[in-house]
Amino acid sequence: MSRIVNVDIDHAPYSILIGQDLLSSVESILPLLAQKRVAIVTNETIAPLYLNGLVALLAQAGVQSQAIVLPDGEQYKTWDSLNMIFGALLTERAERKTTLIALGGGVIGDMTGFAAAIYQRGVPFIQIPTTLLAQVDSSVGGKTAINHPLGKNMIGAFYQPKLVLADLTTLDTLPQREFSAGMAEVIKYGLIDDVEFLTWLEQNIVGLMNRDKELIAYAVERCCQNKARIVAADEKETGQRALLNLGHTFGHAIEAGLGYGTWLHGEAVAAGMVLAAYASRALGHLDDADIARVISLIERAGLPVVAPALGLERYKALMAQDKKVDAGRIKFILLRALGDAYIGELPEVAIDAALISGCAAAK
Amino acid sequence: MSRIVNVDIDHAPYSILIGQDLLSSVESILPLLAQKRVAIVTNETIAPLYLNGLVALLAQAGVQSQAIVLPDGEQYKTWDSLNMIFGALLTERAERKTTLIALGGGVIGDMTGFAAAIYQRGVPFIQIPTTLLAQVDSSVGGKTAINHPLGKNMIGAFYQPKLVLADLTTLDTLPQREFSAGMAEVIKYGLIDDVEFLTWLEQNIVGLMNRDKELIAYAVERCCQNKARIVAADEKETGQRALLNLGHTFGHAIEAGLGYGTWLHGEAVAAGMVLAAYASRALGHLDDADIARVISLIERAGLPVVAPALGLERYKALMAQDKKVDAGRIKFILLRALGDAYIGELPEVAIDAALISGCAAAK
Ligand SMILES: NC(=O)c1ccc[n+]([C@@H]2O[C@H](COP(=O)([O-])OP(=O)(O)OC[C@H]3O[C@@H](n4cnc5c(N)ncnc54)[C@H](O)[C@@H]3O)[C@@H](O)[C@H]2O)c1
Ligand SMILES: NC(=O)c1ccc[n+]([C@@H]2O[C@H](COP(=O)([O-])OP(=O)(O)OC[C@H]3O[C@@H](n4cnc5c(N)ncnc54)[C@H](O)[C@@H]3O)[C@@H](O)[C@H]2O)c1
Ligand SMILES: [Zn+2]
Ligand SMILES: [Zn+2]
Repeated sequence: MSRIVNVDIDHAPYSILIGQDLLSSVESILPLLAQKRVAIVTNETIAPLYLNGLVALLAQAGVQSQAIVLPDGEQYKTWDSLNMIFGALLTERAERKTTLIALGGGVIGDMTGFAAAIYQRGVPFIQIPTTLLAQVDSSVGGKTAINHPLGKNMIGAFYQPKLVLADLTTLDTLPQREFSAGMAEVIKYGLIDDVEFLTWLEQNIVGLMNRDKELIAYAVERCCQNKARIVAADEKETGQRALLNLGHTFGHAIEAGLGYGTWLHGEAVAAGMVLAAYASRALGHLDDADIARVISLIERAGLPVVAPALGLERYKALMAQDKKVDAGRIKFILLRALGDAYIGELPEVAIDAALISGCAAAK
Repeated sequence: MSRIVNVDIDHAPYSILIGQDLLSSVESILPLLAQKRVAIVTNETIAPLYLNGLVALLAQAGVQSQAIVLPDGEQYKTWDSLNMIFGALLTERAERKTTLIALGGGVIGDMTGFAAAIYQRGVPFIQIPTTLLAQVDSSVGGKTAINHPLGKNMIGAFYQPKLVLADLTTLDTLPQREFSAGMAEVIKYGLIDDVEFLTWLEQNIVGLMNRDKELIAYAVERCCQNKARIVAADEKETGQRALLNLGHTFGHAIEAGLGYGTWLHGEAVAAGMVLAAYASRALGHLDDADIARVISLIERAGLPVVAPALGLERYKALMAQDKKVDAGRIKFILLRALGDAYIGELPEVAIDAALISGCAAAK
């Protein structure tokens, strides 16, 4: 039995299907295809696991598919990879009604979504997220992007999929480090505005990390519900959607500062959320007990709670490059309390205090 | 006195201002800026003519501007140029509220619009078209794109400007060959669905080619009205907007076949419209007198009426790469009569007939 979460975006509503073994059937995909033709974008790690099965099922249903297999890694989330997709699509003469399918984690999802947004000025696409992070976060909401040498996710589009198919069974092959990275975004939803879920996570973190299927299904559904609600209210991030960036301004600085791919996105976000908590404490919102709760949960999810020692000035320079900047001012996502995030500015002294509390000692 | 045409697109209506000396003031631009900061994208030919004046007026109004000057030419309508724009924007830390201004012809307009569509997932932009073609066609309607080695305008987005400022005075410096190229798109509107305008063009073509200012103002306004109406009814080209591609399926084949930049876009469209007319004759819609009218008007506009001898097979292969393909079938824009275009298919024999009638004899 699969769970359904609807994303009620005005001009382009769609559904997220969550369940076990969803990839053993293409029933949910077929009615959405404008043409009996798809291009599946995936990577070298995922292809041997899930590509052939999907291609075979589609073929049985009379759908012709073209596979585009990219190298694996955040460092390939670039224009060059996008151009490989376009080259393949144009060589095979993919048309405006050809659906692109993203089969993979957030990197594949972000790139495929962006490719779909700009190939021939937009073709339909479907997300089949295969990492926990992608299932609870990146595949939902239509943010697509590639990285630029001067900044992460700097080039992209808002472009919604026609369907998100979150097959929980694919998580069976996901390495534990990647599972943990996904948990960072799961915890994020609790911290933003769902303290009930945060408490549930604290109670069930051991079972989740042991991959209890029922617990994972509940967590994925709850995260998707939270994300769907926030995104439906503010698709283009002119307001409250920015809350979803909790931990990300610091996190992106960590990713960029260490070089993309050194820390996983989720790991950087985890340490970034701890920094955001420290910053919120510096503002007088959180107390030491709150900080301890945040750190404990993140730690039990197998994630780093201490940010790398990049140096205060470098952190600030990197954060000034972020997208959430308005007239030179960085917008931070801060916590009024656990489960009550807001968008605000941070005086330099509070940034310093957070970095001093939350970073490893410089060597 | 400037003329105003409104483009009533649901989610993003905007105005086109048409008149003399519009660039001697920035009054119409200022209220639209989300931030007192713009980035002006232009090229090496246009910069010495119009850039400094615009920058100075903006500075007087307290608007900080960054100029991004690209090399001139259709062959630079590529990802590399786009990346120059992104590099410059990121280096100067342009933000989500920074407005991009396209100052130039269709090449600059298409690239700048696309850059605005995908820089940080979308920033505001303003079109200041400085060629006749851009003023009557490319700057209006939100089609943006770059070329791919495997196809023209294959990568892009639908992204509407906040304002189009068509300063007719800038046409004074436009070479006559470029002016003629713009006339191809002007004539296109008459052929599509405005036979009254077609007749007016036949009566006034000499005055237009002699750059009579009143005649040009009327023609630009009329074209923008036609385009605005068609675009408002079908922004994403799911139906009737495709009529605007009259002559373009053949035209793009000519451009690609000769190598982009050999013939100007407007020149290729001119010969392409003649081919579309021959194809319509092959279907029994037009008679020889109609063909003669089309050829005469296009010729008097200083445009080619004979397509290059690429060979039938090459033409057909190139056209199959076009975006207007559905399940392998090419959609052509054909003429039921002069001023009455429709979207349809073309039997191979009619394609052959058109190419045989309309192409130069093979050498
Ligand atoms: N668009 C958004 O809203 C959004 C939100 C959050 C994160 N992101 C982006 O998502 C990316 C991170 O996504 P991610 O964490 O999924 O990383 P990822 O896509 O790199 O996947 C992680 C690793 O797991 C492998 N993998 C994927 N599925 C697997 C499976 N089922 N079994 C075995 N291995 C598998 C991948 O090949 C990769 O090596 C970042 O680029 C980040 O910017 C986007
Ligand atoms: N987006 C659309 O809907 C749409 C519609 C039609 C055409 N297009 C695109 O537009 C492009 C063609 O546009 P174009 O014909 O304007 O070509 P262009 O932009 O290359 O300009 C033509 C030449 O005139 C120069 N120039 C521009 N303004 C000048 C001025 N005022 N004085 C002197 N020189 C000037 C340019 O530097 C260039 O050398 C093509 O790439 C085509 O695909 C787009
Ligand atoms: Zn994230
Ligand atoms: Zn054109």
